[in-house]
Amino acid sequence: MGERLVVIGGDAAGMSAASQARRLRGPDDLTILAFERGRFTSYAACGIPYWIAGMIEERDQLIARAPEVFRSKQDIDVRTRHEVVAIDTDARTVTVRDLEAGEEADHGYDQLLIATGATPLRPPVDGIDAQGVFGVQTLDHGQAVLDALADREPRRAVVIGAGYIGLEMAEAMVLRGLEVHVVEMAEQPMSTMDPELSTRIADAMRGMGMELHLGTAVEGIETDEDGWIRAVTAGATTIAADVAVLGTGTRPFSDLARDAGVPIGPSRGIVTDRKQRTPLEGVWAAGDCAETFHRVSKQPVSIALGTIANKQGRIAGLNLGGSYGSFPGVLGTAVTKVCQLEIARTGLTVRDAEAAGYEVVIASIDATTRAHYYPGARPIGIKVIAERHTGRLLGAQIVGEEGAAKRIDVFATALWNEMTVDDLLNVDLSYAPPFSPVWDPVLIAARKADGAVTEDRA
Amino acid sequence: MGERLVVIGGDAAGMSAASQARRLRGPDDLTILAFERGRFTSYAACGIPYWIAGMIEERDQLIARAPEVFRSKQDIDVRTRHEVVAIDTDARTVTVRDLEAGEEADHGYDQLLIATGATPLRPPVDGIDAQGVFGVQTLDHGQAVLDALADREPRRAVVIGAGYIGLEMAEAMVLRGLEVHVVEMAEQPMSTMDPELSTRIADAMRGMGMELHLGTAVEGIETDEDGWIRAVTAGATTIAADVAVLGTGTRPFSDLARDAGVPIGPSRGIVTDRKQRTPLEGVWAAGDCAETFHRVSKQPVSIALGTIANKQGRIAGLNLGGSYGSFPGVLGTAVTKVCQLEIARTGLTVRDAEAAGYEVVIASIDATTRAHYYPGARPIGIKVIAERHTGRLLGAQIVGEEGAAKRIDVFATALWNEMTVDDLLNVDLSYAPPFSPVWDPVLIAARKADGAVTEDRA
Repeated sequence: MGERLVVIGGDAAGMSAASQARRLRGPDDLTILAFERGRFTSYAACGIPYWIAGMIEERDQLIARAPEVFRSKQDIDVRTRHEVVAIDTDARTVTVRDLEAGEEADHGYDQLLIATGATPLRPPVDGIDAQGVFGVQTLDHGQAVLDALADREPRRAVVIGAGYIGLEMAEAMVLRGLEVHVVEMAEQPMSTMDPELSTRIADAMRGMGMELHLGTAVEGIETDEDGWIRAVTAGATTIAADVAVLGTGTRPFSDLARDAGVPIGPSRGIVTDRKQRTPLEGVWAAGDCAETFHRVSKQPVSIALGTIANKQGRIAGLNLGGSYGSFPGVLGTAVTKVCQLEIARTGLTVRDAEAAGYEVVIASIDATTRAHYYPGARPIGIKVIAERHTGRLLGAQIVGEEGAAKRIDVFATALWNEMTVDDLLNVDLSYAPPFSPVWDPVLIAARKADGAVTEDRA
Repeated sequence: MGERLVVIGGDAAGMSAASQARRLRGPDDLTILAFERGRFTSYAACGIPYWIAGMIEERDQLIARAPEVFRSKQDIDVRTRHEVVAIDTDARTVTVRDLEAGEEADHGYDQLLIATGATPLRPPVDGIDAQGVFGVQTLDHGQAVLDALADREPRRAVVIGAGYIGLEMAEAMVLRGLEVHVVEMAEQPMSTMDPELSTRIADAMRGMGMELHLGTAVEGIETDEDGWIRAVTAGATTIAADVAVLGTGTRPFSDLARDAGVPIGPSRGIVTDRKQRTPLEGVWAAGDCAETFHRVSKQPVSIALGTIANKQGRIAGLNLGGSYGSFPGVLGTAVTKVCQLEIARTGLTVRDAEAAGYEVVIASIDATTRAHYYPGARPIGIKVIAERHTGRLLGAQIVGEEGAAKRIDVFATALWNEMTVDDLLNVDLSYAPPFSPVWDPVLIAARKADGAVTEDRA
């Protein structure tokens, strides 16, 4: 008689873990049962804005593996529309509600993996739960937006919050032909970037016809008599709106774990160790609901991103499968685009770095993605943040056009290895005129940062 | 009375060094005199094929800084059409021929920087020096090709050698409307790649209409009575040709240094230390003519590439300027494209690795440049070479379409830091559907290589 693994959550982290564990342990040795509240498993949540935008035609293109496939090919018993409503870590049971049948049942586990994902932050204002106010974290959410677009033919959308999801959804709504207002509390969009770069993002958004309400808090949602959104009040303005989208970021959806006594960290994520174990025996967590650590700030963080969820799921699965893996932390790398503008970051912003106790020097450069004389050379702006005296790289941000953003991965790999800007500037990166100036923009930025470190020391 | 620096060669390495030294030492402290055989200084030699192809309209777009500018802005006395014909390291003089006036004169130096570049390898066959057989290392060479295209309206071109320059020149000739034959001794184009990837390159070349003669040596060049090329004999075939281009690679142009007793290394490059000093007091070398070391094979190499020349020039200039810099070696990173196919490499191929005494495991993957469901996702193939047992990354090669090649820089940065594939697969690279699958192809390849290392150990 083998062990029994229960997975809460059918998305990337949970199903990566289940698949990895299955590869290492057969069904006689390990029974795997996964409960998913929604209708879908193992899908690309990050693709939802593009599906809503109409750039991806079929919802199923976003689904990596359907429940039937997990069942038939991997002997993983996935039950969708089943919500885990309670965990008893003493009895080692979960209470599961079948959302279709309306019934509840208890299931025992030997090992429990919590992969409940993230939930959108909702400003605590009147009407925020009105009909027509959408999150876009799940395929069910995405389908709800598309249904509203089809059924109600809205003309005006308000996007609340101008982070990654806010930007992507604002663009999706423009592509759908809606008039788009973006309301953001901060003075600039993309508060995960330093202000001088986010100014360029604001310009690009206005260039697409979006109206920006910056430094403005949402104060309420007005509704029709049928409970559907009619307007968003933001600062002194009332913005007529047929739909609204929450782009205010997310928080780890750790409530179920917290209620069961699983320790929650300062980032509101479930506390995990390098193996993705929580402090409670037999309880594991992975993905957006889990807390991890930042390799540069050395502080606990929770970052909702599919790539991290997949990696953590794999690590949890290796350990649940009886092998070994350790999750080495994150850098806060992220990338997006709005219209033709590519936006990327890794490591710490100036504000993050100072909050972590670093003193910094900064360097900003403007260059081109290809040799300046080569057709299709596009602008790229890079900001590098390095530690005073040591010159250790702490972070980098990129804003530019085609070919700009993916260069962030070189900074990420340099950060991973705790490189100094002095060492980075000599790295043998690839060069040919269709791909880069003779000094790649990454190296130009590192060289300027190295100069700033030297000057600061002098 | 200050020191006197003489620079031999007006291209990237020499002029980078001169500029860097000038920034650190004023004209009273350091007199700088640079001699350049050709008519141009400080230009992007790597851009020549694109200029010949007609993609870059003006020759001057390739010139970063003209001699007059060095003279007026930086007090660097650059003399073009002046060839250094001898160095006397005892007397510390160079003998310089003014190619316009036909006169020779001696010039004394305190410090001498040799930056004589590379020269195309010429197969030792009859007729190889015929008119209409072109190298493309210098702007003067490039101008000669363009003049021939304009004056003689050639219809048929033979490109001898299918390395980077061969590929780029073959494409240029296709874009100019010529019928193009490529003759290559090896069984595949791009012998700096492993064979299974170079097969894809051969297919792309044929797809552009090029005729490939692989595994075929050039045996002679037939000429007209006026000495102009008429045909290339290659294996059993005689290929009619109105022009031919040497794409057979280059060797360090170290002859002048060798004749002066400056030590030459096994790669035929001038021996240099970390500061770019040669073993002879007061004699320095940088750029394509200099030997450097490979950070992975730990062996001496000479690689003719503008990016290395610029970096070495900067290091030489820092030291000549009284500051300090050390050149940390190369990885053999390179990138090019032929038609829509992007091609990149870094580190060691399987053959290189085995020659250096490494035993290897390999992994090859096929993925897409963006999320597979996102519009514009293009194929990317990656091969990773890792050391047996340790799993240390030794090299990587990429062949793919738009967005593929520049990912080589992540491998280069990983190699620079001597990462294992096990560590690489968890690096927090950027992800969003327009830029990458949720596991970036780099990480997919590292993960597969890690699996291969583990399996090999078992």
